[in-house]
Amino acid sequence: MEDSPARRPPSPGGLTYAMAASQILGLAVITMTGAWMGHYQGGIAWENSKLQFNVHPLCMVIGMVFLQGDALLVYRVFRNESKRSTKILHGLLHALALVIALVGLVAIFQYHKKQGFPDMYSVHSWCGILAFGFYFIQWLLGLCFFLFPGASFSLRSRYKPQHVFFGAAILILSIATALLGILEVLLFKINDTYSSFAPEGVLANVLGLLLVAFGTVVGYILTREEWQRPPLAEELALSMDFKTLTEEGSPASSR
Amino acid sequence: MEDSPARRPPSPGGLTYAMAASQILGLAVITMTGAWMGHYQGGIAWENSKLQFNVHPLCMVIGMVFLQGDALLVYRVFRNESKRSTKILHGLLHALALVIALVGLVAIFQYHKKQGFPDMYSVHSWCGILAFGFYFIQWLLGLCFFLFPGASFSLRSRYKPQHVFFGAAILILSIATALLGILEVLLFKINDTYSSFAPEGVLANVLGLLLVAFGTVVGYILTREEWQRPPLAEELALSMDFKTLTEEGSPASSR
Repeated sequence: MEDSPARRPPSPGGLTYAMAASQILGLAVITMTGAWMGHYQGGIAWENSKLQFNVHPLCMVIGMVFLQGDALLVYRVFRNESKRSTKILHGLLHALALVIALVGLVAIFQYHKKQGFPDMYSVHSWCGILAFGFYFIQWLLGLCFFLFPGASFSLRSRYKPQHVFFGAAILILSIATALLGILEVLLFKINDTYSSFAPEGVLANVLGLLLVAFGTVVGYILTREEWQRPPLAEELALSMDFKTLTEEGSPASSR
Repeated sequence: MEDSPARRPPSPGGLTYAMAASQILGLAVITMTGAWMGHYQGGIAWENSKLQFNVHPLCMVIGMVFLQGDALLVYRVFRNESKRSTKILHGLLHALALVIALVGLVAIFQYHKKQGFPDMYSVHSWCGILAFGFYFIQWLLGLCFFLFPGASFSLRSRYKPQHVFFGAAILILSIATALLGILEVLLFKINDTYSSFAPEGVLANVLGLLLVAFGTVVGYILTREEWQRPPLAEELALSMDFKTLTEEGSPASSR
């Protein structure tokens, strides 16, 4: 009975270290973005039409990178909680990420409008709007398939690998968009000193590498088969019954 | 006997379409980079110190994106060839990609030197040199573990998931670096007209989206479990024997 799902071991050791690394990297990304905007770009304010720009990088990094990444990790962290609570936390973290990202989007569009700058012409903005749009659609689909009770077991099973793949793809696109945003800010604002290794440029480049490292560690955690959340005993029993019920007529027929 | 590895079905239908899409996208990426450099940036030449720049994007896109991506796909395409031939093709494609990328790197460093521009200050160059360095290390490790006969079965089995993960991560970093390169060229060369949707800017943005699409389709193909190459009958037998030999003492003990 040692392998029974009811007597599960604690989280694998490697997972704990990888999770710690992901959180340190994620918080470092947010801190460095804040330091960049605060120390070099004059701080953050909503009403001030110039400083409103600085809301954008900070919100996007918190929402589209850190919270989006952490929402993917909940199934690896909460291994002994019920699947339903973990799902709800997953959905709520994504919802929070979407709201914070929306604030960041409003900030940049308002800033452009006040300054008379055109919108949506750069490859950063094209990738960003795609990432945000797909992220919202993915969230809605997740809600319909996995939280509302309507979808059948077989429909859920068929959609799940798509949901997992596109979830990872959207996080990667979000991180790539953040890298593009870093380069855009640097070439707009410190074009003259960037090539002589100005401290602001070096800080922003390091921020770029930390974003890559965060994405790599999150991706690593998600793709380790041995770190996946094993089903709880009651879930196994339930899903078997449910499968039998929905796919083979009646439970009696399988006995 | 229908499920026997000896009587394998042809490639799954979905895989064929996805492979076709990946090749169309990859060739479109190369064609558009060539058109951009040829039509808008004055063409390609090695000796001409200005046009030598244009060698860089073209070589990097052919080597670090198209060939690197295709090298990952060989195990999905060549399903009935021997594992060893497929491995050799995988290694050769990566070697070709590395050589072409090296030509692209030499081009950009020579161009900088001739023009008196500084090297390695931008987030594009930092990500790019990391991607190239890791790619070369990954290729060397792959050679040592999987092509030379030295590594034991258990060592190979333990390294394989790492090789697969980091292979995908390096391709993703390469594509992100290409996006950064696109933005850098646009902000350096057409900064005045980019924001008014100049045709060159729109073409380069579309190229960025095609790069994202190529990465997404390749990633999708690689992560479909049902599209993985099933082992051939003789490989199954061989690996069982080999495993038994190396891990349980003698083949006789398992019978």
